[in-house]
Amino acid sequence: MRVDAARLRRDLEALGAIGRTAEGGVSRPSWGAADMQARRWLQERIGAAGLESRVDAAGNIFGRWQSGGPVVMVGSHLDSVPNGGMFDGALGVLAGLECVRRIKEEGIRLRHPLELVAFTDEEGAFGGFFGSYAFTGTLRSEEIPNLKDATGLRMVDAMARVGMDAMAAPGAYRDPTEIRAYVELHIEQGPVLETHGVPIGVVDAVVGFRRFGVTFRGRADHAGTTPMTDRRDALLGATDLVQQGRELVLTHGTAASRLTVGVLKVKPGAANIVPAETYLTYELREASAEMLRSLADRSRALIADVASAWGLTVSVETILDIEPVPLADEIKGCIVTAAQELGYKHMRLPAMAGHDAQVVGRVAKAGMIFVPSKDGRSHSPAEFTSDEDVERGANVLLLTLQKLAAG
Amino acid sequence: MRVDAARLRRDLEALGAIGRTAEGGVSRPSWGAADMQARRWLQERIGAAGLESRVDAAGNIFGRWQSGGPVVMVGSHLDSVPNGGMFDGALGVLAGLECVRRIKEEGIRLRHPLELVAFTDEEGAFGGFFGSYAFTGTLRSEEIPNLKDATGLRMVDAMARVGMDAMAAPGAYRDPTEIRAYVELHIEQGPVLETHGVPIGVVDAVVGFRRFGVTFRGRADHAGTTPMTDRRDALLGATDLVQQGRELVLTHGTAASRLTVGVLKVKPGAANIVPAETYLTYELREASAEMLRSLADRSRALIADVASAWGLTVSVETILDIEPVPLADEIKGCIVTAAQELGYKHMRLPAMAGHDAQVVGRVAKAGMIFVPSKDGRSHSPAEFTSDEDVERGANVLLLTLQKLAAG
Repeated sequence: MRVDAARLRRDLEALGAIGRTAEGGVSRPSWGAADMQARRWLQERIGAAGLESRVDAAGNIFGRWQSGGPVVMVGSHLDSVPNGGMFDGALGVLAGLECVRRIKEEGIRLRHPLELVAFTDEEGAFGGFFGSYAFTGTLRSEEIPNLKDATGLRMVDAMARVGMDAMAAPGAYRDPTEIRAYVELHIEQGPVLETHGVPIGVVDAVVGFRRFGVTFRGRADHAGTTPMTDRRDALLGATDLVQQGRELVLTHGTAASRLTVGVLKVKPGAANIVPAETYLTYELREASAEMLRSLADRSRALIADVASAWGLTVSVETILDIEPVPLADEIKGCIVTAAQELGYKHMRLPAMAGHDAQVVGRVAKAGMIFVPSKDGRSHSPAEFTSDEDVERGANVLLLTLQKLAAG
Repeated sequence: MRVDAARLRRDLEALGAIGRTAEGGVSRPSWGAADMQARRWLQERIGAAGLESRVDAAGNIFGRWQSGGPVVMVGSHLDSVPNGGMFDGALGVLAGLECVRRIKEEGIRLRHPLELVAFTDEEGAFGGFFGSYAFTGTLRSEEIPNLKDATGLRMVDAMARVGMDAMAAPGAYRDPTEIRAYVELHIEQGPVLETHGVPIGVVDAVVGFRRFGVTFRGRADHAGTTPMTDRRDALLGATDLVQQGRELVLTHGTAASRLTVGVLKVKPGAANIVPAETYLTYELREASAEMLRSLADRSRALIADVASAWGLTVSVETILDIEPVPLADEIKGCIVTAAQELGYKHMRLPAMAGHDAQVVGRVAKAGMIFVPSKDGRSHSPAEFTSDEDVERGANVLLLTLQKLAAG
């Protein structure tokens, strides 16, 4: 049994047309008009497949085949970043739908029921992971009123517009013992599979984050009258940290370690005044909790050394502290076996971006399958995965689900 | 003959009380209420001294003693930066007033008349050097309507409020052949005199500028999925340039060379996106035209090398290109002789900030005398020069003016 690749392709095209941008990308931020259209479209497709359709209190959409015992779940998300691509999230939902549909069509009896899920606001128009947080019981009621999009629209008001009560979202919680497994097929969003010429990625873990906000403080001086060696220039600390931090991570980290400084601000910010203060974000990502801790500790020591070397004071604030989430060995094993049975090469690699699988993976067995992204591009109209790679990934997903639901 | 140090001190205190800030500094941006009050106060003092008071079409205030032939001018400016100090500019105007007053009081007959001047908007609320540009014929009429302060108020409207026509300012031009010399006493605004324990600075030249706007362009990538070695991170180019540019200037420049990067902006500027574009200002200052050119040439080569090393493209725009202005040897000689006659140690040094003397010095003989700034501070309430240093500087100015007016 294989997926119907042409039908899956048509579904991807149909969903990709919803929220299509002038640049050829898609914009489906959560609860916007395009997201609502995509939600209605998916519910129709679930219904047309003869699956039991349901929407929970967080707006997560389900399509269930068979009732009873702990369920094998498959899915991802429908929402996109602004002007993003047509595969991120959509592939996991539509390949999941295709798999459940095929198993039902073939009349295969499995020990565990199957359930498709499309989680709400994975991409974070309102902060991210709203649906999977609610589903796993990690959404805190008191934080819901604070969730806002970039225009200041509150999640509460966005959901009220479509007749839903955001404050009721924690009711979407499902007891983890009812979840046998969660599997997500996703584009890699990086260049590793393409570079290695391997069509199937078996995701080992979803990386953790440490994001620091680093503020160096020196002294505003006249750019002419103050000799260069008499300055306490906050930008010299910041620029030295960017360079030395990179060396630190390349030297002491792994191939999956990342340091990104994406924000750097200078005060007072005039061409003829020596910078008195700089603020930068220093974001580490790593798949191993131990390595992440080690890099974070070394980085904190480096930040203090750099401040001292340039005669600056420094304060470090932890903005994000998210542990890596190892994925379930049992599911990895099923994916590997499925790829081998289908004759596809596979490799293990970490997921370097956030995914619903990391949220579900904290409370239940979760797994992820990656397929190649052309040039590693994503979150852009340039996001592309070939029909062949989509088909291979969907067939590995189909076999994996069967193994998990049979076992 | 010496200056009346107590009277000069009272004048400094009286002017320093106009526009006094809560922090103990002064705020007298050009054409504001405090500047207008200071202007009226100075005109009264000029009148009380029996000098001929006059305001030209650019708002420059004059106080003349005796008529006829090429004039020996002395002065500076009344305006200040926001929350600046009570000495910057004010010292040159009030010491000049005291010198002219003393010479008149003593009934000394000189070959050349003396003229005190307070130039308009030296500090640049509306761009800087408005008065001395107009006076020397370098103010271009077509630029006047574009002069605005930080709130968007146009110079044209600010002057209209006080009954003046900014468009008439070029009428303030005076033929340089009518100027025998211009001498400006000013606080150093740097630490050199204090560090050397020398009370009198003989300014060799006013530094020139090269200010470049440097834009590095790379590629916006996902902070997780894109390996660090696959990135074209525009911030790596910018931070490398800040560090290597500093080394370049320290290695190849002089004690008077300065590199300041006061502005650095990052796009898109999100913690989880690799910077696609950075913009920075790269400002060189140097007293020697040849050295400035050499540093600018080396810097341009460095900028290109840095871009290439990080896989970036780069564009460099010249924002400011101001040649150093050597001051007149004849005036330097008079200042040195005056200091020696008074028994004060002196040293030669460049002026690292902009001054009206550099504008006048392009068309006529100009000279500057520096006195020490405590801790090198200026443009702040911490700006301070001791009574003794003020008196020494004013007496050197008095002798210098006599020599220039006699000769």
